[in-house]
Amino acid sequence: MSEAELSINLKLEIIKEKHAQIFDILTENGIDCWLVFTRETDITPDSIMELVVGNSVVLQSAFIFAIENNKLKKIAIVGNFDANAEKEKQIWDEVIGYTLGINELLQQTMERFNPKTIALDYSKNDVSADGLSYGMYLILEEILQKYKNRFISAEAIIRALRGRKTKKEFEYIKKACILTEEINKRISSLLKVDLSELEIQKMFYDLVKECNVGYAWQKHQNPMCDAGPDKEFGHVTPQPKIYTKKGHTLHNDFGIKYHDYCSDLQRMWFFGKKEDLPRELQHAIETIVQAIQLAADSIKPGLRGWEVDELVRDFIKMRGYEEFKHSLGHQVGLKAHDGGVLMGPLWERYGESPNLLLEERQIFTIEPSIKTPNYGMVALEEMIIITKDGCEFLIPPLKDFIYIE
Amino acid sequence: MSEAELSINLKLEIIKEKHAQIFDILTENGIDCWLVFTRETDITPDSIMELVVGNSVVLQSAFIFAIENNKLKKIAIVGNFDANAEKEKQIWDEVIGYTLGINELLQQTMERFNPKTIALDYSKNDVSADGLSYGMYLILEEILQKYKNRFISAEAIIRALRGRKTKKEFEYIKKACILTEEINKRISSLLKVDLSELEIQKMFYDLVKECNVGYAWQKHQNPMCDAGPDKEFGHVTPQPKIYTKKGHTLHNDFGIKYHDYCSDLQRMWFFGKKEDLPRELQHAIETIVQAIQLAADSIKPGLRGWEVDELVRDFIKMRGYEEFKHSLGHQVGLKAHDGGVLMGPLWERYGESPNLLLEERQIFTIEPSIKTPNYGMVALEEMIIITKDGCEFLIPPLKDFIYIE
Repeated sequence: MSEAELSINLKLEIIKEKHAQIFDILTENGIDCWLVFTRETDITPDSIMELVVGNSVVLQSAFIFAIENNKLKKIAIVGNFDANAEKEKQIWDEVIGYTLGINELLQQTMERFNPKTIALDYSKNDVSADGLSYGMYLILEEILQKYKNRFISAEAIIRALRGRKTKKEFEYIKKACILTEEINKRISSLLKVDLSELEIQKMFYDLVKECNVGYAWQKHQNPMCDAGPDKEFGHVTPQPKIYTKKGHTLHNDFGIKYHDYCSDLQRMWFFGKKEDLPRELQHAIETIVQAIQLAADSIKPGLRGWEVDELVRDFIKMRGYEEFKHSLGHQVGLKAHDGGVLMGPLWERYGESPNLLLEERQIFTIEPSIKTPNYGMVALEEMIIITKDGCEFLIPPLKDFIYIE
Repeated sequence: MSEAELSINLKLEIIKEKHAQIFDILTENGIDCWLVFTRETDITPDSIMELVVGNSVVLQSAFIFAIENNKLKKIAIVGNFDANAEKEKQIWDEVIGYTLGINELLQQTMERFNPKTIALDYSKNDVSADGLSYGMYLILEEILQKYKNRFISAEAIIRALRGRKTKKEFEYIKKACILTEEINKRISSLLKVDLSELEIQKMFYDLVKECNVGYAWQKHQNPMCDAGPDKEFGHVTPQPKIYTKKGHTLHNDFGIKYHDYCSDLQRMWFFGKKEDLPRELQHAIETIVQAIQLAADSIKPGLRGWEVDELVRDFIKMRGYEEFKHSLGHQVGLKAHDGGVLMGPLWERYGESPNLLLEERQIFTIEPSIKTPNYGMVALEEMIIITKDGCEFLIPPLKDFIYIE
């Protein structure tokens, strides 16, 4: 049995933990009704379904979390063939199945709660809170015409729900990191000069298979493998004709999936002895290691994402490098890029996400990068969880290149 | 290497075949520009990306198919880290990378083409054409404010593009069917009485692993296994305490993924000799087999989906059964439920999809079901491809129960 995916029973445990967070989150945000409206989730998934429902549905389906008499009521309205599966799970106060159409049932349910606000899964800023398709929005506008002016974005709900990792979520992500590091260590014992990037990626594939885990993002870019000075890190697949060489570096960006949860780590190797490391690379790796520690020392609840990014960005510039062309760190969870708050600059492309607040129990990457004149890019990526007054690394951070002599 | 997913190179071959269809499809529909606007597709995927781009992207990205001087121009505007990957593929006339934001680049490109229509991936009716999220629609409204009144649904484009299976797509789907049938046959040789549904599902899991293929839909419901008379077919997971018994039936609904493409077939077994088959089951299976043949004899390009559904639905009623509470058949492709035209009734829940036209090279399931008074549900599911003037089964249809003596 693969360790990549959670079994249906373990998945239900997580869903129950997440359901238990919803009442507080709705109350904090002054929202009395959250409606997840979806259909054929195998083809147009709403990613929040993984956390609050746990399986795909076929026909138009409504999952309603509403506050009634200061209590959370949870209602599922689904097609007849999906109704039994929802009942089986015993997580809903009511499961309503239908044969012909959902419209009337959904209208009746809204009349019953008559909520002040109806939070829907759309967001300009937070990609993880944007699961409602435009076609489904148009359908909902027709069905709930009367309530249209009560529609609001559910981004605050989803940000909190994805962000606040439960004990089990933390455990799975930490285990994913540990397994990633184990695979990296085993690769270290196999690495040598004159291997192509593609051959190295293949070595990772074999170990991923052996460990029975999955991939945190698309496999042909996972791990990314960058050998030597000529590649800009990013989304270029490992090449068959770029080889490891003495005196060069190797970089990877690698994430696995364990029990549905992701890791996302970058590591770097140097082909040669530590005493042969060029000063240029020495200065670069020290800068990256210090930058990561600087971020970890600064991160705490209540800061805005851009504040940490700016601190590290300025440090990198102060050390004489150009600023990196990406964000410092993103959240990790069911997805490698898990949405919500971003520790990034206030660039147009990131919208409002760097302006949001860091909060306890969010899990982030820290991944600064720099470019050296003669040896190419240098970067590491670590993962931390935010605590009451700071943060903790999920696994010990790398402090230097890994040397392959 | 798993046979479930296409390698990146084989995927590119399919994408090139699909790109070659786009000019005609745009022209037929009088559309001069199609814009796929997306971001972080690992968390909010637009399913058409699999057919026209082939990999996920991180930042806001625009993939533009526009007609200029009677020729198709294909442009990708993506974040800096995704630009090299797009260039590598050599499928775009232009690849534009950006660091800060997409707005101006997208505006400039639209000014250059000044299209009469801008088709976007939203649809109330066709779930496969509804990949644009509401948040992304709101962003696009702002960026392309000037062009807002030219926005139309891309559903006609996507329906044709997903529906018209190329030679390679057909080949992969057919192979998926053949492998599914092989697994079913091997299971037949292992089946006996007193196995639980869950044990039987486990036997399928082992063979799927051995064949190195994937699952066409979520694994805990694939295959569905229904033993004996007490379950309504649908999405209820196989149970640990429902057992096969002499004189009872076993039903499954099973689909695999081979090279990214799906199969979706239902088979039925009877525990006993053919001469011991109760008349009730005899009549039921004959009805199902005849209903499938009736559909296959009727299907041809130019019919509307509901016409075939109604024919079969009426036949089932004429044979003395209640009508089935689902559609007769759906398209199959990259997804088991592949959207587009539906051979289904004109019920509210199906929107306009049964009103659309059958077309050459669409691949459909045919899956009527009936309920017998004493032996539970009886159903089979076959797959056909529509030809110039009719249709052909992808693999020979089952004509009777499979007998386990």
